[in-house]
Amino acid sequence: MSFDLSCPVPFTATDTIEIGHGGGGMMTKRLVDGLFRPAFGAGPDDLNHDGAILDVGGELLAFTTDSFVVKPLFFPGGDIGSLAINGTVNDLAMCGAEPVGISVGLILEEGLPIAELQRIIGSMEAAAEAAGARIVTGDTKVVEHGKGDGLYINTSGVGRVIAPAPINPRQAAPGDMVILSGDIGRHGIAIMAVREGLGFETEIVSDCAPLIAPVKTLISAGVPLRCLRDLTRGGLATALIEIAETAGLTVRLDQKAIAISDAVRGACEILGLDPLYVANEGRFVAFVPASAAETALGIMRSFNPAAAVIGRVERRRERGEVVLDTIGGLRPLDLLSGEQLPRIC
Amino acid sequence: MSFDLSCPVPFTATDTIEIGHGGGGMMTKRLVDGLFRPAFGAGPDDLNHDGAILDVGGELLAFTTDSFVVKPLFFPGGDIGSLAINGTVNDLAMCGAEPVGISVGLILEEGLPIAELQRIIGSMEAAAEAAGARIVTGDTKVVEHGKGDGLYINTSGVGRVIAPAPINPRQAAPGDMVILSGDIGRHGIAIMAVREGLGFETEIVSDCAPLIAPVKTLISAGVPLRCLRDLTRGGLATALIEIAETAGLTVRLDQKAIAISDAVRGACEILGLDPLYVANEGRFVAFVPASAAETALGIMRSFNPAAAVIGRVERRRERGEVVLDTIGGLRPLDLLSGEQLPRIC
Repeated sequence: MSFDLSCPVPFTATDTIEIGHGGGGMMTKRLVDGLFRPAFGAGPDDLNHDGAILDVGGELLAFTTDSFVVKPLFFPGGDIGSLAINGTVNDLAMCGAEPVGISVGLILEEGLPIAELQRIIGSMEAAAEAAGARIVTGDTKVVEHGKGDGLYINTSGVGRVIAPAPINPRQAAPGDMVILSGDIGRHGIAIMAVREGLGFETEIVSDCAPLIAPVKTLISAGVPLRCLRDLTRGGLATALIEIAETAGLTVRLDQKAIAISDAVRGACEILGLDPLYVANEGRFVAFVPASAAETALGIMRSFNPAAAVIGRVERRRERGEVVLDTIGGLRPLDLLSGEQLPRIC
Repeated sequence: MSFDLSCPVPFTATDTIEIGHGGGGMMTKRLVDGLFRPAFGAGPDDLNHDGAILDVGGELLAFTTDSFVVKPLFFPGGDIGSLAINGTVNDLAMCGAEPVGISVGLILEEGLPIAELQRIIGSMEAAAEAAGARIVTGDTKVVEHGKGDGLYINTSGVGRVIAPAPINPRQAAPGDMVILSGDIGRHGIAIMAVREGLGFETEIVSDCAPLIAPVKTLISAGVPLRCLRDLTRGGLATALIEIAETAGLTVRLDQKAIAISDAVRGACEILGLDPLYVANEGRFVAFVPASAAETALGIMRSFNPAAAVIGRVERRRERGEVVLDTIGGLRPLDLLSGEQLPRIC
């Protein structure tokens, strides 16, 4: 047996896709960095951002795509339809762009009740209207019973960049303050509670929401936005690790500044989950120069009183990309391997 | 029992999604017209076209989306990867646009061999390069084993409109000639042959191919393109019926002008299929004024010698949107209910 050290792709002939490849952690990164980026020509200057920026005749456009495979289709605070619209509107917002058009690609499973589809379509319509987005084109495919999970939705979005300067991880600089737009972990816990049939005393409602309004307000107020990132799978920790790694910097977080509701904290304790890694669908972090932090925080608090400055950017430390200041000292945060699994059996 | 005549949506509470809803025929139309168009605000001026046209700062963009759920993933002449790139590049081309950026949304099934994924990604890369398209953004999700079909791919595309005048069904006018870019039915028969394990004497290879080059050449030559449409699910007949219905006109086809290879014709006879409704992935029809037909045909023949003028546009006839001139007289063509099923058992 020998090792082929020249092999550029870190997979063996017998490797297969595992659930963890979709978790947003180390396994996802290995798939993206080892297979997709090399094939699709992403160079070292790749911004590792929520969307691509295209220059079309001098007009800057953001372009983004996301597929939604959430189970169950309906959950407290939303459904797969509102999630699919908000997810793509939010990715555009994180590029400093307002939506021009959204596409909807539906993969329907044979046997899906049309009444459920109607509810979901209605909720996409409502979410688009609330976000000021227009669904302009679509596609429908049907797969055999058992080959889907009710329905899968892809949404892609085209947006017009309204921010005056680039917003992406490479703009982050030492001294920047990191502001979190609200409390974390609601979406992931809401989904898990329904999926696993857990009867928490307080019903936890997903934070699923459009983020375009606060971003537009920040831009209108002239806040220099260095980097924005909505927190989705992998949670706050994964988002910050990705940004810090791309920027070649360290983010130092103040644990006690990170808002987590008692209900989410309690559920995480029961399930054995770290809320820093639990999914959100309506929260984002903004990296802004220290001089603009107060203005930015004021605006973000006007949308959600739980917004807070949770950390700052420093030159790269030996100990890691993201370090958490806890009572017990500095704790480096790492990407999880795959998905966090609830400790329920 | 009573009929609620005011109900705007033609579905009952117990209706479910059936395979036929994805066939591109009458059932698909009912779903799109009864549910998606009203919800997503498509008015009577909707162009019923392959993509949306967006005006961003005076720059006209085409925006399109398509999901690919083909089974098997690999087939003679291509695979789901080349199909996904060509499908979206072709939808942009049908809008008179050249690709600016393509997004890729992957839904991977747990257990998919990574070696297969690598092959498919490689073929997406090659197809993008051949079409002069750049994959600029992507997303990966993983679903549990048994909840997918290996993988599903969504591609969306943003293109810059390079045609000097609008290209869509409403531009078609009486007297226009209809030119078909080659022989029909190869893709659908190639897929069915592999799927059903049919051992035809001659292997039929999918026509899967990018169509941007002939469209760009037609535009450069100054051919006034009224309407373009690539032939996908539902085949030539469905594409023409949709165009004629949107235009409020009739297309009169000359049956003997429509090229069908002996292999496809033979397979269709055995399977009991009408080749006019069989899927293609690398063929299109162009509607051009009669004065430009010779130039257009010359260009299209330089790409495929089987290109031919197959019909012309007339004022709306009582008998239907598309009529086929056969030896036995005029035969009106209708949308199929769902999908054509091969007669194999």
